[in-house]
Amino acid sequence: MDGIEMTRRRFIDAGGTAAAVSLAAIAAPAAALAQASGGVRPTGQLMPDGVKLPSTLPVRKRADSVGIAVVGLGGYALNQMMPRFAQTERTHIAAIVSGSRDKLRRVGDAYGIPPDARYSYDTFGKIASDDRVDAIYIVLPTGLHAEWVIRAFAAGKHVLCEKPMALSSADCARMIAAGRRANRKLMIAYRSHFEPYNLEAMKLMGQRAIGDIRLVRTEQSYRMAPTSPSENWRTNRALAGGGSLEDYGIYGLQSALYLKGEMPESISATAFRPPNDPRFTEIFAHVSSQWRFPSGAVAQLVTSYDSASTNFAQVRGTAGALIMDPATSYAGQKMRLEGRDERELTSGDPSVQFARQLDHFADAVRDNIPIRTPGEMGLRDLRLIEAIYASAETGRTVRLAPDGRMRG
Amino acid sequence: MDGIEMTRRRFIDAGGTAAAVSLAAIAAPAAALAQASGGVRPTGQLMPDGVKLPSTLPVRKRADSVGIAVVGLGGYALNQMMPRFAQTERTHIAAIVSGSRDKLRRVGDAYGIPPDARYSYDTFGKIASDDRVDAIYIVLPTGLHAEWVIRAFAAGKHVLCEKPMALSSADCARMIAAGRRANRKLMIAYRSHFEPYNLEAMKLMGQRAIGDIRLVRTEQSYRMAPTSPSENWRTNRALAGGGSLEDYGIYGLQSALYLKGEMPESISATAFRPPNDPRFTEIFAHVSSQWRFPSGAVAQLVTSYDSASTNFAQVRGTAGALIMDPATSYAGQKMRLEGRDERELTSGDPSVQFARQLDHFADAVRDNIPIRTPGEMGLRDLRLIEAIYASAETGRTVRLAPDGRMRG
Repeated sequence: MDGIEMTRRRFIDAGGTAAAVSLAAIAAPAAALAQASGGVRPTGQLMPDGVKLPSTLPVRKRADSVGIAVVGLGGYALNQMMPRFAQTERTHIAAIVSGSRDKLRRVGDAYGIPPDARYSYDTFGKIASDDRVDAIYIVLPTGLHAEWVIRAFAAGKHVLCEKPMALSSADCARMIAAGRRANRKLMIAYRSHFEPYNLEAMKLMGQRAIGDIRLVRTEQSYRMAPTSPSENWRTNRALAGGGSLEDYGIYGLQSALYLKGEMPESISATAFRPPNDPRFTEIFAHVSSQWRFPSGAVAQLVTSYDSASTNFAQVRGTAGALIMDPATSYAGQKMRLEGRDERELTSGDPSVQFARQLDHFADAVRDNIPIRTPGEMGLRDLRLIEAIYASAETGRTVRLAPDGRMRG
Repeated sequence: MDGIEMTRRRFIDAGGTAAAVSLAAIAAPAAALAQASGGVRPTGQLMPDGVKLPSTLPVRKRADSVGIAVVGLGGYALNQMMPRFAQTERTHIAAIVSGSRDKLRRVGDAYGIPPDARYSYDTFGKIASDDRVDAIYIVLPTGLHAEWVIRAFAAGKHVLCEKPMALSSADCARMIAAGRRANRKLMIAYRSHFEPYNLEAMKLMGQRAIGDIRLVRTEQSYRMAPTSPSENWRTNRALAGGGSLEDYGIYGLQSALYLKGEMPESISATAFRPPNDPRFTEIFAHVSSQWRFPSGAVAQLVTSYDSASTNFAQVRGTAGALIMDPATSYAGQKMRLEGRDERELTSGDPSVQFARQLDHFADAVRDNIPIRTPGEMGLRDLRLIEAIYASAETGRTVRLAPDGRMRG
């Protein structure tokens, strides 16, 4: 997610196709990463030129604090995650990795990262012998996750990887295998699993607060500003996959799973790309799916990059409903329980999700506690994403095994 | 919808199966109609013992007012439709038909219906020579529509038939053919086509007020009080079909069509019936479907007899959204336009829908104007309902021809 402007020429030089980009990421990571530029989220995150300086330096608070190298200094790393390290109990930024010398200098100075802990993609291999670095946090465009997670394991480090885990279940399996070979932890940064409203929602659903769940409806949409695959990696198939489903709809996909507590047995889906729109030459504008669970319950999911902003989850059961709107934002969550025990729920400060996620990762690394959001969860979700696209492609309902694999 | 209590014994006596009931309706209409008893809507309609007396008698206001025989004196006829005749310009209740002598007397007296214009199902045939009766309004349980519409045409009368038109597209086709043979009008009582909010919604969508429509979501649900197929015809497959889809979800189905203005090219659906629930031994508790339109737009529909009360339609387009909640109620509609021209819409008094529907029927009968909601529309909708159940049954996505017929 480095903020270097990518030109059409550089994109073509770097390969210009899905396979080529992935190889380019290994052969010339800086060039490949240049493709990651232009990523603009609708949430007002600052781009590199507006890097937020941390108000508190993420000092090491405990002797067993986990030193983390942040790989990829894009908007999400700079504006959301890096400032949160100061709020964690047991993690600190030990190193940074970027293809931009200027950014390494400015961000490194801002965060007090020693000059010898500022790596480029060319010097990344040396991180293996940097004992200050216990773990690596991958915040790159999705299409680069697999290769860099595997490189991180090769360097003997634990890995926290941003969502979605990768662009294919095959890549997820390779990443998991690499972690096992290296005997290192792999966690996917599914922040909702550390957010108080979503945690309470999971608990309530587990307690059957609305009876038997019959329906889950989710929607995650926003209207993407004019752009193109050469300007914004999120519209570039090689880096972003099919688009909003992986990026934003995955929150609804996750919600459906952790609120219902069941894997779907079949999925039917449709995907649409309007003609002649530079935003959608490579990715879909809209993806809708309908899931059937073995219990008979249904989930209906919608995600879009070309629709009014929405971010909600609704769960209806035999004894009430749970309405989350917004459901999985950085802050400002609202949640209402309907039925016999009708009330607005105020579950805590959603903004703790970022720091709690980091501390959970530290606990897993240091104390060997089971990871709530392991690589296997990322793999499971990629299987469902593949099933959704397969159904959209063929126009048929896809049947799934309990592990999310497509049947015959 | 006569309110005679139906016992299990009487149901068995009358046949007890789908085919038998339909035959029973012809052979012994009073007994068959007894099966219609117990219909309880969640809208606070009064059952026969609480029949509302009309505050204004539906007098004939114009010389060309259409005399209508109301067939079936259940809750909807007594509490919603019959009192509305007084508000129409060009219709009046000319006769009533019921299997209950007591009801004929009480309702007939209340509405000033002459004793010789009070028919039982046994004497229905004589209505053919009753010149006071121009048309017949069928307000029977759905499973009886086909036979009684065809009888009404055989009596040479025009027909207004409650929704859904019938329980199968084959029956719809027979009803249409009977109307053509008799050279009489056939209109389906789709009241939303005469309701100011829904009419404005159709107009706005036609004007592209929210740009290109990409998504329609509808939900029509309520929790049915404890009952069984022998007590409430709405839970009896022979009389109600699959359940809430035909009865309530059809409003969402209709909304999706008239808001999007397009027929779906494929449908995938699921239907669920919880075990050991006397309400759902014959019908489904929940039906969900996802439609794909040729334009790439999607509709997701939900309807339930076992979920919190909902009645909404949401339409999302490239330039905004239309939110209707409640969308198709008797009164109290709310509608909001989102996007560049954001506003709450107050389109008029929804309660005029009943009288306007009757007057439209009168205009069609007297002035030969085209019917907005003809039998062909009812047939189209039954084809979609059949496609939904076919998909739910097979677990496969069903492909549709432009007329709604299932392809191969």
